[in-house]
Amino acid sequence: MTSLRVAAARLASSFSESCQWGATPDGGMNRLSLNDDDRRVREWFVEQVNACGCTVKVDQMGNIFATRPGKNNSLPPIGMGSHLDTQPAGGKYDGIVGVLSALEALRTIHDNQLETYAPIAVVNWTNEEGARFPPAMLASGVWGGAFSLEHGHSRSDASGKTVKSELERIGFLGDTECSYEADPLSAHFEVHIEQGPALEAEDLRVGVVTGVQSMNWYNVVLRGREQHCGTTPMNMRADTLLCAAKMIQSINAQALSLPGSLASVAVINSTPQSINTLAGRVQFNIDARASSNELLAQLEERLEAACREIAGNDGVKIEVWDRIWRCPKTAFDETAVEMVRRSAREVESGKFKEMISGAGHDSVYTARKVPTAMIFIRCKDGISHNPVEYSSQEDIQAGANVLLGAVLRYDEFLKNNHQSK
Amino acid sequence: MTSLRVAAARLASSFSESCQWGATPDGGMNRLSLNDDDRRVREWFVEQVNACGCTVKVDQMGNIFATRPGKNNSLPPIGMGSHLDTQPAGGKYDGIVGVLSALEALRTIHDNQLETYAPIAVVNWTNEEGARFPPAMLASGVWGGAFSLEHGHSRSDASGKTVKSELERIGFLGDTECSYEADPLSAHFEVHIEQGPALEAEDLRVGVVTGVQSMNWYNVVLRGREQHCGTTPMNMRADTLLCAAKMIQSINAQALSLPGSLASVAVINSTPQSINTLAGRVQFNIDARASSNELLAQLEERLEAACREIAGNDGVKIEVWDRIWRCPKTAFDETAVEMVRRSAREVESGKFKEMISGAGHDSVYTARKVPTAMIFIRCKDGISHNPVEYSSQEDIQAGANVLLGAVLRYDEFLKNNHQSK
Repeated sequence: MTSLRVAAARLASSFSESCQWGATPDGGMNRLSLNDDDRRVREWFVEQVNACGCTVKVDQMGNIFATRPGKNNSLPPIGMGSHLDTQPAGGKYDGIVGVLSALEALRTIHDNQLETYAPIAVVNWTNEEGARFPPAMLASGVWGGAFSLEHGHSRSDASGKTVKSELERIGFLGDTECSYEADPLSAHFEVHIEQGPALEAEDLRVGVVTGVQSMNWYNVVLRGREQHCGTTPMNMRADTLLCAAKMIQSINAQALSLPGSLASVAVINSTPQSINTLAGRVQFNIDARASSNELLAQLEERLEAACREIAGNDGVKIEVWDRIWRCPKTAFDETAVEMVRRSAREVESGKFKEMISGAGHDSVYTARKVPTAMIFIRCKDGISHNPVEYSSQEDIQAGANVLLGAVLRYDEFLKNNHQSK
Repeated sequence: MTSLRVAAARLASSFSESCQWGATPDGGMNRLSLNDDDRRVREWFVEQVNACGCTVKVDQMGNIFATRPGKNNSLPPIGMGSHLDTQPAGGKYDGIVGVLSALEALRTIHDNQLETYAPIAVVNWTNEEGARFPPAMLASGVWGGAFSLEHGHSRSDASGKTVKSELERIGFLGDTECSYEADPLSAHFEVHIEQGPALEAEDLRVGVVTGVQSMNWYNVVLRGREQHCGTTPMNMRADTLLCAAKMIQSINAQALSLPGSLASVAVINSTPQSINTLAGRVQFNIDARASSNELLAQLEERLEAACREIAGNDGVKIEVWDRIWRCPKTAFDETAVEMVRRSAREVESGKFKEMISGAGHDSVYTARKVPTAMIFIRCKDGISHNPVEYSSQEDIQAGANVLLGAVLRYDEFLKNNHQSK
């Protein structure tokens, strides 16, 4: 089992084949969920898994489960999943690495005529990015019980098209119920690019991901006073945008002073958009994360106190301070992580890093229902959600081999566990 | 002459009559240039001036000149002008005070059967706000030679409708050539609310405006790096919005440290609008003003140096730093200002303030061609471009009386000047 390795050349050609749909001239990808390129790559994916003796199920959210039978088909399959959709100005690796590595692991099992104990499934989750249909991780969220099917179906893009109508249009509105209960897995393993610089900094190919950090999003609305920029003395203003600018700096400073935490402001909107009228209303969002729920609670307290002090000094009112999304720390399953660790130890001769994920992934929602673990691979300069996003084929290959080894080890674990009962 | 006073009650009722068109439930006004409410108030205005024996000319930009003949009708009329259009969430005073005071001054002259030496005209300038059709002071700008007629006609609103088509639609596309040369004035006097807090702070009703400060607008575009907010360590970012926030604070600090100058950032836009992706591009505008062209040049130098230093430290590139609008200091005509000063001395028993205007007005463009002066009246808390904008009827009345006295004095000056030739 441990000597099995994926076919590097075939894995590499999966990228050149499948990334023809959505490729952009700058070397990046624009394959927004459920567009025509997403349809084409889904059709390609189904062809590939059919060639490996899989049965294909498409659920009500368009998630594709390609299952290769094992010895004991009363067990739910061990899943290997990620996503084929991208950001509008994204790269060829985020998500895509996970699905193509899983496909390659499946092909390797199939080529070696390996009979696994449990069935093995490759899963392509719909709309992980949430770039076209917010929020992110939508369809794994429905499967994992975080969102209702109705919520998932009714999400719409900027032009008003819904997930359901677009699933129907591209022929991927399946009839399998989208839920763990109706369509279970035994476990979920996911390879993903790190999207950060830690592995590169330590010259490592592979990370064993033990969990996902605690994450909160906030919506903040400030109200100052619309005043004429030319006639209002500098010391008689309630300048809402100036106040927001001070907050943005302070939010950054708070996270810098609290090791293990991150805080970022990326979205801002000021009204009225008039060059000579001071903004009277400014909206912005905060993305705050920390390695533990406790640390994030501490960060939240500091951010709010700092912003309230700034607003008070500036004569600006905080009209809205809402936590609009909360995703507590996810600790991955110990056994699933151990199988990844053992596999990484063997494939990478002990050279890997244990880490937590800074970003959310489909595995956050599968972890609500089934033993889950993730494998990170190195990506250049830590850049992601950008056309220059890059991971080498050698690193992708290492990740696929760790995935293969982890799944086969988990299958062995299921077999021993089941037979000992 | 000096004992002549406007009729307070009639002036007050001009507001209640004419502000029925465009009134908003919050007590403010929404009478965007050339909309149906603007048409109705223009029709009302024409009725009022017709009742004072005026001839009415509408020019190609929809400016309305209502002229009451004098003794020497070979002289161009002495103009009293301002605008009846408002911001979308504006008040009942900005511009409106100027036209209604001028109308009241005209009615007072007419009621007293005064034969002036020169003809007297009330002018309603089109689209002073520029809120629907940027830029501001558009039609006085065409008249004053700052813009071509073609430029004025082709400005369009958010829905693509042009000034020309909307003038046509509401029946105010006149055939009088829109230029000082074809349709001259002898002088231009304008009453306007201060839009700042200086008069209120000194408990004065009236300001004698000697000029308009020097004004520049800038467009700035910053380029940093789009990075994942959850996976990029705080110290490995090129966070474009954080960099912009530092600049906004520094721009404010630079103006504070340079007495006589103002600098404001009211418009900002960050992309992509994604809560968990650091902004890679941020655009903002700067409104910079100073009491002299030299001081403004000094401010400009400091602002650019400060922003370039911040960008350098943050690893962010200043992709665009453009001065998109420049309006050098306007010094009003000494004789016209002196007539305002004498009138204010009499009407307000010597209690007034000499000041420069922080904002641009139609008088900036008339001053390019004819002797021009302005009268400011007090407004509450210095607030303007806002539904709570307010000036008392007593203060408006004082302004109208100063206007009337100034115009009659200027008429006397023209008469003496002409007869002495």
